[in-house]
Amino acid sequence: MAGTRKPTLAVVGATGAVGTVMLDILSTRPDVWGEIRLVASARSAGTVLQVRGEGVEVRALAPGVFDGVDVAMFDVPDEISADWAPVAAARGAVVVDNSGAFRMDPDVPLVVPEVNPEAVADRPKGIIANPNCTTLTMMAALGALHRRWRLTELVVASYQAASGAGKPGIDRLRAELAVVAADETLGTTSGDVRRAVADALDEGVDGRFPFGAPLALNVVPFAGSPKDDGWSSEELKVRNESRKILGSPDLKVSATCVRVPVVTTHSLAVHATFAEELTADEARAELEQAPTVVVQDDPATGVYPTPADVVGQDPTYVGRIRQALDFPRTLDLFVSGDNLRKGAALNTAEIAELVAAELTGRDQG
Amino acid sequence: MAGTRKPTLAVVGATGAVGTVMLDILSTRPDVWGEIRLVASARSAGTVLQVRGEGVEVRALAPGVFDGVDVAMFDVPDEISADWAPVAAARGAVVVDNSGAFRMDPDVPLVVPEVNPEAVADRPKGIIANPNCTTLTMMAALGALHRRWRLTELVVASYQAASGAGKPGIDRLRAELAVVAADETLGTTSGDVRRAVADALDEGVDGRFPFGAPLALNVVPFAGSPKDDGWSSEELKVRNESRKILGSPDLKVSATCVRVPVVTTHSLAVHATFAEELTADEARAELEQAPTVVVQDDPATGVYPTPADVVGQDPTYVGRIRQALDFPRTLDLFVSGDNLRKGAALNTAEIAELVAAELTGRDQG
Repeated sequence: MAGTRKPTLAVVGATGAVGTVMLDILSTRPDVWGEIRLVASARSAGTVLQVRGEGVEVRALAPGVFDGVDVAMFDVPDEISADWAPVAAARGAVVVDNSGAFRMDPDVPLVVPEVNPEAVADRPKGIIANPNCTTLTMMAALGALHRRWRLTELVVASYQAASGAGKPGIDRLRAELAVVAADETLGTTSGDVRRAVADALDEGVDGRFPFGAPLALNVVPFAGSPKDDGWSSEELKVRNESRKILGSPDLKVSATCVRVPVVTTHSLAVHATFAEELTADEARAELEQAPTVVVQDDPATGVYPTPADVVGQDPTYVGRIRQALDFPRTLDLFVSGDNLRKGAALNTAEIAELVAAELTGRDQG
Repeated sequence: MAGTRKPTLAVVGATGAVGTVMLDILSTRPDVWGEIRLVASARSAGTVLQVRGEGVEVRALAPGVFDGVDVAMFDVPDEISADWAPVAAARGAVVVDNSGAFRMDPDVPLVVPEVNPEAVADRPKGIIANPNCTTLTMMAALGALHRRWRLTELVVASYQAASGAGKPGIDRLRAELAVVAADETLGTTSGDVRRAVADALDEGVDGRFPFGAPLALNVVPFAGSPKDDGWSSEELKVRNESRKILGSPDLKVSATCVRVPVVTTHSLAVHATFAEELTADEARAELEQAPTVVVQDDPATGVYPTPADVVGQDPTYVGRIRQALDFPRTLDLFVSGDNLRKGAALNTAEIAELVAAELTGRDQG
């Protein structure tokens, strides 16, 4: 990379739910980038999107778009990343990938800047992975606690938003909400919501529900795809990614992932056991000092995080911090984080900025 | 009680959310009752409600309404039960109370008929308590597993319906749903749902949200009232009532109770550790044989319980049964149950029927 030139960034998947938030984030973060190149499928090519107050024309994904690119962020489905991230890397770009394609690859670091920023430097494939949004919801907070008391066990139940399934997920939730808001009898007899939603949205009761079941006036205890022994891909990601990010291959994890009728912002009920003794007050003090964590914890006056209040914000919000009554060295707490921001675009941008600083520093050194 | 006469039942709180379901249940259960007397506050006296296909006039709560009553079910707030259950008992009625007033009283049995039916007979105060709806959501299923493998640890996160707060809770959720369904931008910026709901429902942003925060397009990580060390009353009930019902005073329990925008039917993500080795298949087989439990567990084909499908039904539904990958002798599972039926009215009716059988049997013996 040439002298003092600011690095060139490519945003691949610029038109998706995460990509849209990414352009917003790039417009408000410290301006470390030179050219920002927007890339999407051929279908979206030619669209003009606003970033940093300027219109930028979207280019179709092709090998040539990576020429001269220093850092390429990918917010695309796993199979597109699997094919195209190596293409970008081969052309000299450092790839920051938000798909699941490379997260568990031993030659690809999985990075949360608050937890393991040093890992970005060790990237033999030229690819750095961004964690799954559900894992990311709790990592800034758990990383701070882990650093001091060493996390050993984690039992997690999730409350995941519709936008985890992208724009189609948001649109589907709104369409279902309109159906259930129009009939005040719904939600009172078995299957009435299922039938009303299916009828209104023209699928019939046996139709395919995008979330596996109606999401409005409901919760759906499954996210991702089915894996061995009844586990979902999402639940295994929480386990495997937490272990890798925290550098704790023996961390014990059980997760149950559940979708809830929230637009954006995932929440987690966390039961966390540590190697060292700790109190709720000590944990609260530690979290209050963590730069990207906000503690909202006074239930007697109604102070705790809720997704509708956290959405659109960068920090991880933590509340309901309690010392477990029957489990030693264990806290129960509730965490909320915007799954499109810290859970996806923001963490990707932060990783990319670490790379930009490294590239710029190397040039200056 | 006289010869072969069927026992007389009083339903106190007949006009509430649980009372309404109770009248429905009494109209469909085996008809063990003679007279059914309906009782409510003076405000509701004179109302005529249907039970067993007949109109019955509601009587105002007063000592005299219990004269000649064999069994009195109470579905009223704690303080009303605390005052009036002893009055009914003193007049000879066996009280089955669904408030929190007596559940942890050592002289009052806390009964789930599938788990500890024998406890109804030992009632020195003439009062039997019905458990909290959240505890009841999982007790039929956990009781079956406990009987075979002995439960030792329980980590629970709840997904609790609006009707846990009675008719006002249901009305509030519907009012909030109408607000958020009318504006497709809501749920995307911090506090937008809070402001829209507060403005529309005339309370202002600092107004009192009945659920502590908006419930539509949100989840609220608090239910009940604040107790010591950050715990909620609901979370402590899950712990203390589970121990009492299962007869396991040393059972380790951590619960996080969260309200979700569902009309009726509570769900729980349960992480349960046992004294003896067990597999998910063995647990599934055991649950399939439990008379009041239905197993819905084939996530690959979209089969798992959801509250919108379970509502209005009597059984406890269990799915997502997984052997914990990192915790020995531990299952993760998801349970849904109608909080107004098994979680309240149905269990109360079942307890009352045990008492009726005892009274009738005693007369016959």
